[in-house]
Amino acid sequence: MDPKLGRMMLKEWVAIESDSVQPVPRFRQELFRMMAMAADTLQRLGARVASVDMGPQQLPNGQSLPIPPVILAELGSDPTKGTVCFYGHLDVQPADRGDGWLTDPYVLTEVDGKLYGRGATDNKGPVLAWINAVSAFRALEQDLPVNIKFIIEGMEEAGSVALEELVEKEKDRFFSGVDYIVISDNLWISQRKPAITYGTRGNSYFTVEVKCRDQDFHSGTFGGILHEPMADLVALLGSLVDSSGHILVPGIYDEVAPLTEEEINTYKAIHLDLEEYWNSSRVEKFLFDTKEEILMHLWRYPSLSIHGIEGAFDEPGAKTVIPGRVIGKFSIRLVPHMNVSVVEKQVTRHLEDVFSKRNSSNKMVVSMTLGLHPWIANINDTQYLAAKRAIRTVFGTEPDMIRDGSTIPIAKMFQEIVHRSVVLIPLGAVDDGEHSQNEKINRWNYIEGTKLFAAFFLEMAQLH
Amino acid sequence: MDPKLGRMMLKEWVAIESDSVQPVPRFRQELFRMMAMAADTLQRLGARVASVDMGPQQLPNGQSLPIPPVILAELGSDPTKGTVCFYGHLDVQPADRGDGWLTDPYVLTEVDGKLYGRGATDNKGPVLAWINAVSAFRALEQDLPVNIKFIIEGMEEAGSVALEELVEKEKDRFFSGVDYIVISDNLWISQRKPAITYGTRGNSYFTVEVKCRDQDFHSGTFGGILHEPMADLVALLGSLVDSSGHILVPGIYDEVAPLTEEEINTYKAIHLDLEEYWNSSRVEKFLFDTKEEILMHLWRYPSLSIHGIEGAFDEPGAKTVIPGRVIGKFSIRLVPHMNVSVVEKQVTRHLEDVFSKRNSSNKMVVSMTLGLHPWIANINDTQYLAAKRAIRTVFGTEPDMIRDGSTIPIAKMFQEIVHRSVVLIPLGAVDDGEHSQNEKINRWNYIEGTKLFAAFFLEMAQLH
Repeated sequence: MDPKLGRMMLKEWVAIESDSVQPVPRFRQELFRMMAMAADTLQRLGARVASVDMGPQQLPNGQSLPIPPVILAELGSDPTKGTVCFYGHLDVQPADRGDGWLTDPYVLTEVDGKLYGRGATDNKGPVLAWINAVSAFRALEQDLPVNIKFIIEGMEEAGSVALEELVEKEKDRFFSGVDYIVISDNLWISQRKPAITYGTRGNSYFTVEVKCRDQDFHSGTFGGILHEPMADLVALLGSLVDSSGHILVPGIYDEVAPLTEEEINTYKAIHLDLEEYWNSSRVEKFLFDTKEEILMHLWRYPSLSIHGIEGAFDEPGAKTVIPGRVIGKFSIRLVPHMNVSVVEKQVTRHLEDVFSKRNSSNKMVVSMTLGLHPWIANINDTQYLAAKRAIRTVFGTEPDMIRDGSTIPIAKMFQEIVHRSVVLIPLGAVDDGEHSQNEKINRWNYIEGTKLFAAFFLEMAQLH
Repeated sequence: MDPKLGRMMLKEWVAIESDSVQPVPRFRQELFRMMAMAADTLQRLGARVASVDMGPQQLPNGQSLPIPPVILAELGSDPTKGTVCFYGHLDVQPADRGDGWLTDPYVLTEVDGKLYGRGATDNKGPVLAWINAVSAFRALEQDLPVNIKFIIEGMEEAGSVALEELVEKEKDRFFSGVDYIVISDNLWISQRKPAITYGTRGNSYFTVEVKCRDQDFHSGTFGGILHEPMADLVALLGSLVDSSGHILVPGIYDEVAPLTEEEINTYKAIHLDLEEYWNSSRVEKFLFDTKEEILMHLWRYPSLSIHGIEGAFDEPGAKTVIPGRVIGKFSIRLVPHMNVSVVEKQVTRHLEDVFSKRNSSNKMVVSMTLGLHPWIANINDTQYLAAKRAIRTVFGTEPDMIRDGSTIPIAKMFQEIVHRSVVLIPLGAVDDGEHSQNEKINRWNYIEGTKLFAAFFLEMAQLH
């Protein structure tokens, strides 16, 4: 595989404004062009390609737009080999030169070994690295060491519209022969050291409504004689977490997986420049001082964040209102082996308890509006071992074994529907700026990433 | 004074769409027409009238509109008589038939003895009642028992733009001979029993900002390692008031005027139908069960209301944001003899104390953005005694001696700048619906109110 060719293709792909976030016909056309170009590339590699019609997307304004097709492609069906399915997406976040881009976001531009362009790292570059790796075997006229499948969508940045239904439908068809699923849609936590991601936190999102009446009051006319909903709500929200970040909901830590010596060692092995981390996040001081504590509290311990209040006065200036009905919002990031429905019960019981002690005449309603389970993989699975060995071969180092403090719904979705081992093998560096201005992928990451995927195929063949 | 003529004039005045809230040329022209009509009416009564040019109003959008003139008028200058100055305004709140008006808001319409129309009770009706009272003496060819001055503006609903500067400038000119100031711009607290208002609460409005950094965080990426500003803010706001409405800021009750037996008796004498009050306010239960406690907590005790939070997530839906910088807003309604700057110090010290105990690395800034003193008058002042006697004469009853839980800035302004006794003599009933749809003044209130003002002139002459 000629690196120049790989860069040319990335340039060609980045040039397509495949923005799925802004629901306008122009971008939707670009998305269809993008998916057609990818289907063509895969066909020329010799894959059997199906472009699945996904029907229309209903927009909130009542109109609809066509959803770009999802590509399901297969290369090889040797029953003696393992089958690896690669998930990727070719849609991008919006990008506008006026927002602070130093180069045209849709013209891949190399500066000091960095390839700038929207989608360069999220996710066009990694998709192409995988395709490049396959092409390399083709160019060398070698048999592929594994059977390869692709599922490539064009709506990830818009919430993977309709993808889950497709995966559900293809569970026993396209996915029936799949042994392993690889996603490469996140980043290392370092500039130079590769990583493998084996877990994400889940999330349970709560609303707590306190209502006196639907209308607001004037604080001059009613201040002093009401059980004010805001006073109740502030007390409820204030009962959730202490100033050290410890969650005060009784029982919430009961099911958190015990910490093993082996796990502690994975944190110790990770290189994290705290100074650099503080600076880049522009935070003066974290709750914890050591790398290990910070990583554990982002990845393996639950956290509770209060997001805001709906229905109160939220604008600049001074308004003497007593809000009549307010809705507090907070969420708990869940970790293995916390259970969404147990957490829902614990939080509800706790808030009811706090509220009843206030003897308020207001009405309180607690709702869990979102419940996403945490995800964790077995890092001794075949494909984890293969990925580690491939990283050793290409980069000459052990990978950082990392988790993600956020939920990556796609990983959890594949695990829950397809029941196969899922691994996240990121290619991009921590400073790639996905979703922000001046997104880039390093030339080095793109090329070594291609090599890594090729080496991964070989390792999979040996270990399977 | 012929009641028919009085109603005709009110009809003519209500027909003018003198909306000062919506800053558009059409309404501004109507305001100028309104003020010219009033000046003409006063001139025909024999008053010396000055229409003071108030210059332009600068709008937030950079444009400007002319402020309608303020009318300064004088009737009589007998040095042996007392001089009473009447303040009123002729601008109105916006009104649109589509908002739920049962009749055209700008066509005064009588239904069951109620005169519906925008401005009928706030404040065109009471201004005309005063004018009608003066006309009555003219019609009877009697000398006015007191010298009368008028200050009538057209921007009250928009915050009395530029009025304070004018009052300051006229302090030793127009106001030099004034002994008493009468305002009739609020309501009774009953449907049938007249009232005199002798005090209002003040207000100190606070913001408390907690900042980690200017940008928000993603709760997946940072949840668990931050001193989250919302957790700090919720704790700060939660430290202000308990579930029984008691303010927890140390020292805050120290200067509250002691309750006297005489004062308790004024609350006892007031007729307040609690059942009706509950129903009309659509509140299931107040903090207090008795009329006396409710009135005292609205009028003579301070109250603290939390208004909301700026900078947090305040929209419908679920957003997993950790706000980086949030501003809590609350205010304390002040009562005699609380002092604005003492309260500012007490609140600031209290919040600093609570915050320091949290050991948070965030920055907190407390600001008092508004400080309005409470106002209370001496109810044994000549004009209070005159108003009481006039009410006895016209209504055959003692008035409710009431206060207002809100601030009436105009009362405080006259007291502070002109240093004269100020009395509020409302004419309208509690259900007049000022500022809302279907505003009305009862025919009875309008006529008896006119008589009340005439009787007041006579009593003033006797007592002065």
